Amino acid sequence: MKNFPDAEVASLKSCAIALAEAARPRTLEHFRSAGLSAENKLKDSFDPVTVADRAAEKAMRDVLAELRPDDAIFGEEFGRKEGTSGLTWVLDPIDGTRSYISGTPTWGVLIAVGDENGPVLGIIDQPYIGERFFGGFGEAFCDGPLGVRALKTSDISDLSEATLFTTFPEVGTEAERQGFETVRDQVQLTRYGTDCYAYALVAAGQVELVIEAGLNAYDVQGPIAVIEAAGGVVTNWQGGPAHEGGQILAAANAEIHAKALALLKPFAG
Amino acid sequence: MKNFPDAEVASLKSCAIALAEAARPRTLEHFRSAGLSAENKLKDSFDPVTVADRAAEKAMRDVLAELRPDDAIFGEEFGRKEGTSGLTWVLDPIDGTRSYISGTPTWGVLIAVGDENGPVLGIIDQPYIGERFFGGFGEAFCDGPLGVRALKTSDISDLSEATLFTTFPEVGTEAERQGFETVRDQVQLTRYGTDCYAYALVAAGQVELVIEAGLNAYDVQGPIAVIEAAGGVVTNWQGGPAHEGGQILAAANAEIHAKALALLKPFAG
Repeated sequence: MKNFPDAEVASLKSCAIALAEAARPRTLEHFRSAGLSAENKLKDSFDPVTVADRAAEKAMRDVLAELRPDDAIFGEEFGRKEGTSGLTWVLDPIDGTRSYISGTPTWGVLIAVGDENGPVLGIIDQPYIGERFFGGFGEAFCDGPLGVRALKTSDISDLSEATLFTTFPEVGTEAERQGFETVRDQVQLTRYGTDCYAYALVAAGQVELVIEAGLNAYDVQGPIAVIEAAGGVVTNWQGGPAHEGGQILAAANAEIHAKALALLKPFAG
Repeated sequence: MKNFPDAEVASLKSCAIALAEAARPRTLEHFRSAGLSAENKLKDSFDPVTVADRAAEKAMRDVLAELRPDDAIFGEEFGRKEGTSGLTWVLDPIDGTRSYISGTPTWGVLIAVGDENGPVLGIIDQPYIGERFFGGFGEAFCDGPLGVRALKTSDISDLSEATLFTTFPEVGTEAERQGFETVRDQVQLTRYGTDCYAYALVAAGQVELVIEAGLNAYDVQGPIAVIEAAGGVVTNWQGGPAHEGGQILAAANAEIHAKALALLKPFAG
């Protein structure tokens, strides 16, 4: 990873926070409104895109045009914009569209910036709850209803004491589901369906594992930066880099990561 | 149901809000703290009771001793206290203990008051989110991050357009799971695992159905009052009263309730 001067670190951090601030009102404007417009992006599956999704990404792109015009952008809604700085902002304006359209508060705005080696800074923002999980350059904190608190992952290293989060049974192939179930059968508690919030809980030391499949880069880069800054480990099911998406294993520490990875590996690919 | 004079309605409403206010700080004090004390209440299952659970119920009982000393109390943590008024307060200081201990924000405080025919007023309170769902005596509103808004259930009456919430696959017998799956196969979208928040979303017109099993009276009386005041219908899987708990079907309107009930009835009992 290239070296970042202090001024560049400060610029990236304040830009990331400006992006989160810009997205919040756009996402909230349509949350729980009647007659929410939704289209099906993928045939045979339910992946609605709302007006809010597009408005929030547009607002973030406007901020980047002003603050970081030389950086590239990869957003869920409007795709890629080239840049010259070697850095790319990876944006998911509403992660958890199913949660969003059903009124559940745990959808979030995901923001990351990094290079081909992965994110160096990320935010998991919770507009409705008024909560922001930040991680990057060795700093990790949550700013929310309980004030500003440092984020630090759990040191539980035994699967039998661990809590696992997942979006299964909603997603994944049959083999992927078997991989997930192999780990599920070893942990103390399995919880379902909170989208990006599950990753925030790993960073906050509340849960030890998240297992998912079929993710895109914009679903996972913000979470990777926050969890790594808080002391955790995120890889794919083969133990390799996770920032391009796919099958994801996020873990609170290296020891429990290794134990879960050993169980998942036969189902990777 | 007996007749309630205006002054009694006002007393019950202000008392319910005082209970929610008293519980909030007690629940938040221990939320996301390290080393949360938890015991296993039920053998072979994971049902932790926290210090916060007991402190919050104690705080609510103190409020009732002052404001409504003649009413009975039935609370999850400290059981029954007899009364002379014919009214009983039914309290669940932390509904969603699994969510609570894993840091997820959608656990809530459930408060209801009623008689042997069921609740006349209820609250689903969300301390972390700062959101309160109230229903009773024809009034239903949410006071939260988006301000105060009236609650009104959805008028979607086709299962094929409906969103279903459930705590399955976490709970239920095999027959109950089959009942749930029969409805799940007919709806547009199924979401998992948000405890009492799912009922709040029915009241708020965001989702159409909640199906659960194995509930206690204190898990369901607050939700019943809020949903009924917002225009919805809550029964057991046989179509009878739900306020004693058991197998629960909560629906946005009578039409979709009837359709889901027809599918669930063969699995009731």
